[in-house]
This record gives sequence, C-alpha cells and structure tokens, in this order.
Amino acid sequence: MFTRRNVLEGAIASGAFASPLAAAMRFDRRAPGFDITLPDGGVVPVFVDAAEPASVRRVAADLAADIGRVTGTPARIVNDRRRLPARFILVGTLGNSPLVDQLVAAGKLDVADIRGKWESFSIQTIAQPMPGVTEALVVVGSDRRGAIYGAYDLSRSMGVSPWYWWADVPVVRRSQLRLRYGHYVQGPPAVRYRGIFLNDEAPCLSGWTTEKFGGMNAQFYTKLFELMLRLRANYLWPAMWNNAFAIDDAAHPALADDYGIVMGTSHHEPMMRAHKEWTDNRQHYGNGEWNYATNRAAIRQFFNEGIKRNAGNEVVVTVGMRGDGDVALESTGSLQSDVKLLEEVIGDQRRIIADGMHMPADKVPQVWVLFTEVYKYYDAGLKLPDDVTIMFADDNVGNLRWLPLPSERGRSGGFGIYFHMDMHGGPFAYQWINSNPLPKIWEQMNLANRYGANETWIANVGDLKPLELPIEFFLAMAWNPADVGKDKIARWTRDWAERQFGTEHADEIAFLASRYAKYNALPKPEKITPGTYSLEHYGEAERVCEAWAGLVRRADAVDAALRPDQRDAFYQLVLYPVRACANLTQMYVAAARNARFAEQARASTKVEADEVRRRFRTDHDLRDTYNHVMAGGKWNHMMDQTHIGYFDWYPPIADIMPPVADLDLDSASGFGVAVDGDSRSWPGYYCRRHFPRSTASRGVRRGSRFSRAETARRRLP
Amino acid sequence: MFTRRNVLEGAIASGAFASPLAAAMRFDRRAPGFDITLPDGGVVPVFVDAAEPASVRRVAADLAADIGRVTGTPARIVNDRRRLPARFILVGTLGNSPLVDQLVAAGKLDVADIRGKWESFSIQTIAQPMPGVTEALVVVGSDRRGAIYGAYDLSRSMGVSPWYWWADVPVVRRSQLRLRYGHYVQGPPAVRYRGIFLNDEAPCLSGWTTEKFGGMNAQFYTKLFELMLRLRANYLWPAMWNNAFAIDDAAHPALADDYGIVMGTSHHEPMMRAHKEWTDNRQHYGNGEWNYATNRAAIRQFFNEGIKRNAGNEVVVTVGMRGDGDVALESTGSLQSDVKLLEEVIGDQRRIIADGMHMPADKVPQVWVLFTEVYKYYDAGLKLPDDVTIMFADDNVGNLRWLPLPSERGRSGGFGIYFHMDMHGGPFAYQWINSNPLPKIWEQMNLANRYGANETWIANVGDLKPLELPIEFFLAMAWNPADVGKDKIARWTRDWAERQFGTEHADEIAFLASRYAKYNALPKPEKITPGTYSLEHYGEAERVCEAWAGLVRRADAVDAALRPDQRDAFYQLVLYPVRACANLTQMYVAAARNARFAEQARASTKVEADEVRRRFRTDHDLRDTYNHVMAGGKWNHMMDQTHIGYFDWYPPIADIMPPVADLDLDSASGFGVAVDGDSRSWPGYYCRRHFPRSTASRGVRRGSRFSRAETARRRLP
Repeated sequence: MFTRRNVLEGAIASGAFASPLAAAMRFDRRAPGFDITLPDGGVVPVFVDAAEPASVRRVAADLAADIGRVTGTPARIVNDRRRLPARFILVGTLGNSPLVDQLVAAGKLDVADIRGKWESFSIQTIAQPMPGVTEALVVVGSDRRGAIYGAYDLSRSMGVSPWYWWADVPVVRRSQLRLRYGHYVQGPPAVRYRGIFLNDEAPCLSGWTTEKFGGMNAQFYTKLFELMLRLRANYLWPAMWNNAFAIDDAAHPALADDYGIVMGTSHHEPMMRAHKEWTDNRQHYGNGEWNYATNRAAIRQFFNEGIKRNAGNEVVVTVGMRGDGDVALESTGSLQSDVKLLEEVIGDQRRIIADGMHMPADKVPQVWVLFTEVYKYYDAGLKLPDDVTIMFADDNVGNLRWLPLPSERGRSGGFGIYFHMDMHGGPFAYQWINSNPLPKIWEQMNLANRYGANETWIANVGDLKPLELPIEFFLAMAWNPADVGKDKIARWTRDWAERQFGTEHADEIAFLASRYAKYNALPKPEKITPGTYSLEHYGEAERVCEAWAGLVRRADAVDAALRPDQRDAFYQLVLYPVRACANLTQMYVAAARNARFAEQARASTKVEADEVRRRFRTDHDLRDTYNHVMAGGKWNHMMDQTHIGYFDWYPPIADIMPPVADLDLDSASGFGVAVDGDSRSWPGYYCRRHFPRSTASRGVRRGSRFSRAETARRRLP
Repeated sequence: MFTRRNVLEGAIASGAFASPLAAAMRFDRRAPGFDITLPDGGVVPVFVDAAEPASVRRVAADLAADIGRVTGTPARIVNDRRRLPARFILVGTLGNSPLVDQLVAAGKLDVADIRGKWESFSIQTIAQPMPGVTEALVVVGSDRRGAIYGAYDLSRSMGVSPWYWWADVPVVRRSQLRLRYGHYVQGPPAVRYRGIFLNDEAPCLSGWTTEKFGGMNAQFYTKLFELMLRLRANYLWPAMWNNAFAIDDAAHPALADDYGIVMGTSHHEPMMRAHKEWTDNRQHYGNGEWNYATNRAAIRQFFNEGIKRNAGNEVVVTVGMRGDGDVALESTGSLQSDVKLLEEVIGDQRRIIADGMHMPADKVPQVWVLFTEVYKYYDAGLKLPDDVTIMFADDNVGNLRWLPLPSERGRSGGFGIYFHMDMHGGPFAYQWINSNPLPKIWEQMNLANRYGANETWIANVGDLKPLELPIEFFLAMAWNPADVGKDKIARWTRDWAERQFGTEHADEIAFLASRYAKYNALPKPEKITPGTYSLEHYGEAERVCEAWAGLVRRADAVDAALRPDQRDAFYQLVLYPVRACANLTQMYVAAARNARFAEQARASTKVEADEVRRRFRTDHDLRDTYNHVMAGGKWNHMMDQTHIGYFDWYPPIADIMPPVADLDLDSASGFGVAVDGDSRSWPGYYCRRHFPRSTASRGVRRGSRFSRAETARRRLP
C-alpha cells in the first residue's frame, strides 16, 4: 500500500484545486496502478451502497457515466454487497455504507485523515480488500459531499472537465485509465459554504432556459447542481426576479437536497422564500404590505411557510429584512427604531426557524447580508445572535467594503462575503461579458480570507455564462486560498486552459483568457464611451485598439490550430469575448475619430462613421454566432444581453449604435492639415492665427467676461 | 410759403428716422406741391455748386440717379449758377454755395433752425427764389453730411430704400413726384458718431468681395459708404483681419473723406492703422515686437505714418494699445506699471496726432475702447485726457457692461458704446444669421443714451449682411432715440417693412422679421444642441418647432403673394432666415428625438435619424439658394458661414451634422410602450418593476456606496 499523499507528478493538470489526484491518473501502463479499463475494452463497475444518501448514489452514477465519456463504455453500477465483482470502484461515505465501515473495521481503509471533517474525502487503492476481491479503488467521503467531490475528482483526473456540458469542453477519449496505487486525501475546504447566485436572469438565462428546458425547472437545476458539485460548490441562491425556486416546482427543494446542494435565498429574501412569492400573492397576506411594522402577523405566516417546506433539507437561511424588492427597508421613523424593528424581525425569524426545523435555531445555519444600506443597521449597533453569519457585500463592482475587525472575529457564526462578478444596478450594470480579471478576484478574496471572512462566500454570477473562468477561480479559492497564491494565478490559469483544451495551446489560451479580462477592466465594456480613450495623448486609443487587435490575431491563430471538436468551447470561453470586446472598443474609438474628424472637417469623417456602422453590425453578427451557430444553437439567448449605448445604469433596451456625425463634403472641399495625436488642425481655431501664442490665448482672453471689480490678469502658461 | 414742419400724413412710411419729409412726398397731384416730374415725362434738374465739397457734389449726382430709379429719367446735374433753369432742385451747404448764401441773404431761405448745428438739414420749397426761376426745392445742409442726409431723405421719400442695392429692394416706378410745399427741418443727431464695424470678414464678406469686386477695394467701399450715408451713419471701422484699408488702396482714406465718411480703426488698432500693416511689415520696425516697453521708437514711427497719411481727412482716431492682434497687452509686470505704460502710449499718441494733423490734439476726435481686459486699466485709475471719448464695450453678446457714472459724465470727450450684433470669439461665436431682436437692442442702447454714453456708437456687424434690419434700427436709434420709444418698436418695424415691400404685406413681414429674430435669441442658433429644448417638459420642443413651422407657413404665404421683383429682397431679409432657422431647430429636435427614441428602442429611431440627415441637406440647399440662385448669384459667399456643430466658441470648419444613433431593428423586435412627454418607456429601467415607488428608488439605493461611517438615511421624496 502506498502512503504517499498528494502526489505531484501527473498526466493531467489539476490546478482547479490542488487535487490529491494530481498526476495520479495515467493513460498508459508505465507505472503500477489500479486499472479502470479492462483489457477486453470494458471497464470496472462502480459500487455504491443502497443505503447511501441519494446524493452519493447519484454521483456514483455520474462517475460511471464519466467513465463512459472517457472510454466509450459507461461503468456498471453495483449495489449488491453480496455479489461483489473481483475489481471495482467503491463510492461511499463514513457511517452510511456497511461495506465502507467493514473495510475500516478490517483495517483495510484508513480514514483517520478525514473522519469528522467537513466535506473531506480519501481515495485509496486497496489490494484484497475482502475475500474474492482482487483490488478496489475506494472513494470515501467524510460526509456526502466529501464522497461527491471525491467521485468528481476522479472524473476530473480522467479528463472530464466540469464544463464538459456547460461549455462544451470535449472529453478526450482514452483506452487506458490507471490510477497509480496510493492513498490520496483531500481535507476540508477553507470556506464552509461556497456558492453562486443566479441573478438578474433576464434576458439571457431566462430566454435560454425557456427555450431549452421550458423554464427554470428541474431539468435546468439538475444541470446546474451537477456543475456546482463538479466545481466543489455547495451553496446556491437561485434565480428569483421572475422565478420562485420552491414554487415553480414544489419538488425543487427536495431535489436540491438530493443532489447535496445547500439552498439559500438571496440577500434580500429572508426565510427561504423568493420575493416573487410575496409579490404574486401579497393579497393573501394581511394588508399586503411588506412592512413588519404594519403587517407583522401575515409576514410571520409567510416566513413560517418558507421554513416548514424546507424542514429536513440542508439549507442556509437568510435572515433580516429589506424593503419591497431589493430596496431599503421602509423606515419606521428613526434609525434606532428601525434597528429595534430589525432585531424583532430576526428574533421572530429564529423562533420560526426553530419551530419549523424542529431544532434549536443556532443549529440551523443562517446568514444576514450587509448589502448597501443594510450596513447602517449593523453600524448602529443591531444585536445579532452570535451564530448568524454576517456577510459583507462588496460595492457591487468587486471591491470589498468591510472586513471583520479583530474584536468581531470571535463570533461563532463568523463572517462571509457576497461578491459581484455581474451587476444589474448602480453604479452601473455589467451583465454582458466577463470583465473580472482573476488577480482582482484574488486580491479581494485573499483579503476576505486573511481577515477571517470565510464562513460563506457567494458570488453573484448573473446568467452564469459567460463567467465560467472567474466562477471556477472563485470556487477554487474558496476551497483552498493557499492553493492560489498571488504568484500562482498565471499558473492556475494555464492549468485551467490545459484542462479544457490540452497541453499544446494551454499557454496561449491562458494568456488570451487572462488578457481579455484584464482589458475588459480598463474600464468595463459597459462603461466605454467614445471619450474613454484619448486620441491625442500617448496614442492611447491607438494602442488600446492595437492591443485588442493583437489578441484577436492570436485568438484566431489558436482557433485555426484547434481540433474541430474544441472550437465551440474555445468560442465561448475565449474567442467570442476577445473578438466582441475588441470590436466594441474599436467601434467606440471609431466613433471618437468620427467626432474628431468632423471637428477637423476631414473627408474621412464618413469613413469612420461607416466603420462604426460596420462594427455595430459585427457585434451582432458575433452575438448571433454565439446564440445560433456555436454548438448548434445550444446556447441560444445566452448572449441576448444588450451592451452598447448605456445612458443610465440600466442596460439599454436595444443596443444603440454610438451616434455618428456627418459632413456635407460637397460644400466642405478644401485642403487641411491635421497632425496625428493632436486635436488641432488647419484650418481651425487653434491654427488660424500666425502666432501660436497669441492664438492660444485669444480664445480665452477674447471670450472672457470680467466683472467691474475684476482686475486680475489672465495669462495662459 | 408753408411753415408746417414734420408733416405727419404721408404716402410713404418713413419710420427709419422720423423723417421731416414723412408723408410730404406725393405720387399724385391732389395737394399743392413742387413737382419733380414734368408733364412731358421729364424731371427737374439738380443744381449743385461746383464749389461744394466733393461729398455734396457726389450726393447730388446720387439724388439725380435716384430720381431716375423712380421715374425712369435721371435728373440732369447743373453746376452753372448763371444758367439756372426755371425749376430745379438745389443741393447745398451753408457757406460753400454762393447760391445758397444768396438765397439766405435774400430772405428766401430760412436756415435759422440748422445753422451751426451738426449734420442738420432743411428742405424747403421756394417760390420765385430769384429772377427767372419759378420755384426751387432746396436741400440745404448745416454741413456736408447735413446736405447728404437731406438729399438721401428726399430719395427715401420717393421710395428709394437704402437697401435698393444691398438687399435688392425694388424701387417702385412713379410717374408723378410732388413734394408738398413746405419747410422741413431735420435737427442734429443724438449721437455724434454713428457707425459700423465690418469684422471677422472671412469667409462671407471676403469671399463675396473677392468674387464680385476683386477684393475689398474702392468698388466695394463706395457701395458701402453710400449705404451708410443713406442710413445716416457717418463712422466706419473697416474690415481688418486680412485687409488693411489704407494700404490695400492708398486712395482709400481720401475716398472715404470724399464721401463724407469718418474713418476710424477698430478698438484694438490704434492710430488709423490696421494691425495687418504691422504683422505684414513688423520686420521693418525695430525688433518687430508689438511691445511699447521694448520697441517704442519703432511703434511711434508706425503710429506717425498712420496719422500723417490721414492729415486733412475727417477721422476719429483710436488711441491706446492692446496686445499683438486683438489680445491683451503684454504685461510689464504689474497692473500699475501697465497703467503707467498705457498713459505714456496715449501721451505719445496725442503728440503724434497733433504733429501729424497740424492742430491741437484735443481738436482731433479720439476714442479709447474698453474691450474685455481693457476695463481693468481704467478701473485701476488710468488718467485719460478729457477730450478722448471712452467707449464701453458690451459683453460680446449685446449686454452692456458699464455705463458712465454721474461723476464721470462731465468729461468733454464723453462716452460711447461698442456693441456686438455679430461675434467671432468667446463666449461663443454668432456670425451666421440675425439673432438680434430689436427690443433687446433698444433696451441696451436706451440705457446707453439715458446714461449719457452717446458720443459714439458703433456696432460690430460682421459681414454686414444678413444684419440689415438691426443695423438700420441701431442707426435710427443713434440718430434720435426719442423716435423709437419702447412702445414704438413694432410700429418702427412695420414702417421698415412697408418701405421695403409696400403697404399690403407690411404688417405680416414686420411680424415675421421680428419673430424670427426673437426665436433666434432663445438661444441663438449657434448655441442650440439636441438637448436645448425639452422633449418631456411642457411640450417645449414640440411647441418651439410648431412656432417655427407657423412662421414658415406665414412666410411662404407672403412669398407667394409678393411681386416677382420683390422675392429676392424677401428671401434675404425674411424668408431665408425663417426657413433656415426653423429647419435648424427642427433638425436639432429630430436629433434629440433620435437619441430619446434610441433609448426607448423605438423603431422610429431611424425615422428621426433620416429627418436629421434630410434637414442637414435642407440647410445647405437653403444656403445654396441664397448664394447661387437668389438675385442671380449676386450674393454668392454671403452665406458661407458654417453654423452647425459647434464644439468650441470657434465655428466648425465645416458644418457637422448632429450625430445620430441607430438601432439594429432586426434584433430589437418587440412591443413597447412610451408615453409622449415622458422619457420613460416600457420595457425600460423606470417601468421594469411592478411598483413605481420601489422602482424609482431602486436605481438610487441599489447603486449607492456608503462609507463605513455613513449612517444617514437616504430617502427619495
């Protein structure tokens, strides 16, 4: 029996997390190990005890399917302990599986490293585990998600990307799968609850789910749960504006629990209920007011129902209360009376939780989220039960606002972070594309971790796509921040690229994926206007356009070199954002040139206007390719988000082409001189006079108005 | 002999000034009077003494020609006192014409009302003035311009508009001209020097004079002098940027004096020299610096030459000094030392004037113009000789800045006003069209008059056209402010319209001419942007557009009703500004709608963009009609001024069509609701939520950033 742990050399990059299986899975027979593939082309079966929780039984089936994705032959599932094959994979949890317990008792399975730990697992190869069995590959979890993460770690080591379905990352077919003999251990995550928030789901996620699944139903959510578990997430705030998770299908809460997903509700929806449940049915609740001061009994009733229907499910309950629909609480008159009211709300909520869940309130995980104005109640001294996790929200643009003070860190509920990678709201919305450079996420979440805000991390991911990369990075950090040091981000990204596209283009793809996100933060595409990049100073506009054009050239080259089956994944993960964001920037710069050239009366004013029109069409062509052509239209609507022509934080209803000016060239004939990098031209204001000094000063001096008292001299430098 | 003076009933409106001839000229024979026309179809001759100044002899010839313009038969000029016809018109001045003096001596001509007065005249019909003469119509001036204004008053009473050539106002042919017997007197003007400044002459005036005359030469200036005299102006600051009046043709100064025009130079060009004379020849003057501290001797030499060449001419000399080309004086280090230097400059200038003009300096009229920064030197206590007229400049936009204080009013040189009807400079340029409502001019110049700033009035009139109406009004006020009371402006305008177009359409044309100028000041066309008029509040944009459209309808109706020979005058004086300014405003409003409709994702976004494009073309079509079609192209280039797309005070080099946005209608299909007069729409930010109150607050609250310390509540009203 091998005792090496966390073997480092390997065959597949495993940088998503520092997987204990890194390099342990071999696609050849050069080192001794447990063969999953059989000489006859078959594969070993997967055993899971019928007594295991549904979530573990389900993941065993997924592992069996993954083996099929890699080898072409799905593994058989075996449940009957009395009829074990000679060689098999065992997936189980401590305490739920007689077979596991028997192996432990027999000293064949060493679980000292994981016993009693949260979401931990061990993968061990065991020779002659029991009479009649030659060898077994055991995936054992300290709990159900430990087993799930262990099974998916095995899948990942075989080359099944978490994004195999969600980003069409092709699985490379292997005829040989051999796990090097060993004892691999994965300890618990740094952050207990790690999750995502599907938010502001229209038009993209809504449109896509409606077309593909008929709505945000179980078909959709099971796909989502699977992805989350493959990414070692455990916590979900479901889409809510036009959706109500627990109502749209009453089986949803149990389904989530069957997957092992911990459900919650968003920062402004307490007690496991979507706000839509209230707005759709408020007429049945007292006076219909979402106001605890005036409609308390009815709101308690509403809370009570939310908890009752989740009795027995693993949940994290959002407590507290905001106003009617993601707005501030309606004040009772003073901050102090508001604080008092909120304390009453939370006190009542905890009684309802204890009653509904049939356990003490402090045994049910709860969060109170300090979003926007909610900070002020905390700041004003609101007394919160010690076991409730306090989640600090960022400033909506990925900058943390608060971190726990040393004096606060002792609280048993700890702290968490509600982080935005996508925003529909002020100061501005960014919902179209990934504009989250990984170093920025690292820098902020590293602070969170170092300051002890690591009980719960949740990221607002909008429609989920196209934030694949930052979502995975965020969850990897949540699992183990130490795996992603500040100097390891590039390496992590390269490994991520290798997992999706193989070794050959990993460096280049990692470069592209990092670089487009970096460019997208200078500023975010939604904030670019024709005035963003200077046409005059330091060649800024030109340099930015050239940088983007360089990315496009490199992305196109990779695209041309990839296998055809990799193109869809490459388009959605790299090529579309690179092309579309380059085009967008170039469109705005053309619009700036159009305006400047009009000022200079250049004939090419029209050329630039045409360029703006062409790039506006190109933007939609690229979008249409994403929606309709890529992966045969599988992701239709996912790029429906408008993103050109903001005039408010709210996205434009339709993309608005940047306005372009025109000249009447027939009457503007003449010779002129303009110098690149200078807004001035001849003829024109600045150059109309013989003497530049007089000229420059003329505009100011001639145009000045002086009050009678004003005698100060006006000189230009 | 009749003794009625200023007869009021009449046949031709004479509101330009309250002419003493008002209603005295008859085109029938119903009242007794002096017949200018003869029964045989001929006309009486015009006598002018050969000893009269050239300017009086010239105007006699012009009067003879005007009689021809009206009757078809130009009058003969008679100079020989010994061979007088039986009936004639006599034009003369007191003290220059033996015949006039003889009539006065004989008691036939009563000049008590005008003798010794400035620019006064009397028109008298005299029976049997001398042996062999039946009757004479005598136009006698107290001085040469008195005679000139008297002669032109007679022309005007016959129906020759001052604008007969300059605005193609047709002269109505008359077969009968009879001046009712009488004694008509015109006393002196209220303002001694009344003039215009041709300024910033490119591209319009320059282009036009180059094409029509080969430059701003004598052909051009004699046309201008004649117009000025017909309008009772006497003072000119000539065009200067690319012109030098006294150098472009060395005969110019004498020519002006021969017309009776008092020449000056602009506010920033001292000592009768164009600044261009310096810039073109600075290398011949000392170190070439326009700096009295460093190049005094050479600049004195330059001044000296300017005065010497004008010796004997009637001039008003601009004194003082500004910087190198209509900019502030280069400081010597402190305001006090600058004041001292300026006092030295003016002291030296007065010695040069006295030497060059061979008379005491205080006998040569001088002005010092307080333009922009020049005020500060006066404010700092600069000591100015009492006889130099101080001219206060407005704020460049027709608002007076200073008026004489009671303590200042005693000075012998008095005060004057330099007023802008056209501006090339800050705070913004307005050079295209007339945007000077007469009530505004009245209000400001009434202040000037009432506060005693009435020694010299000069208006910056840009290219002269198309400011015909405000120029005439300004000069009428300068002649006698009492004639134009605040309640008489409409009447004055109606009379002006009648003089140009006859009685039938006078009311309507006066309305149109007043109204377009009024609309052009809310704000000036150069200042209009798509954001100027609100699409939402009080239907402002719609109402402004409808007001303009109403003017266009009424102007078109007048145009259709006028005689063909009146159309050119009507186009330039009324129809073009009405149509072009209406079109301009409607274009900007369409641009505003285009932007708003884009925000609302309306399909008609494109309709408005097309409307902008159409109106942009229309603007140039109207301009081209003015330049090329109207009056057979006589005024080509006069409408070359760009006027769309300002991005600085400086006019755009070429007109820039307001930028228009576009939508991709193919991908923006859908149903929406927008309410007229409201920027909100559905779908869209403001209406996305069910509850308007929550909705409105969401944008603010959700987007807010709070510092940790901030606990203030944020509530929307």
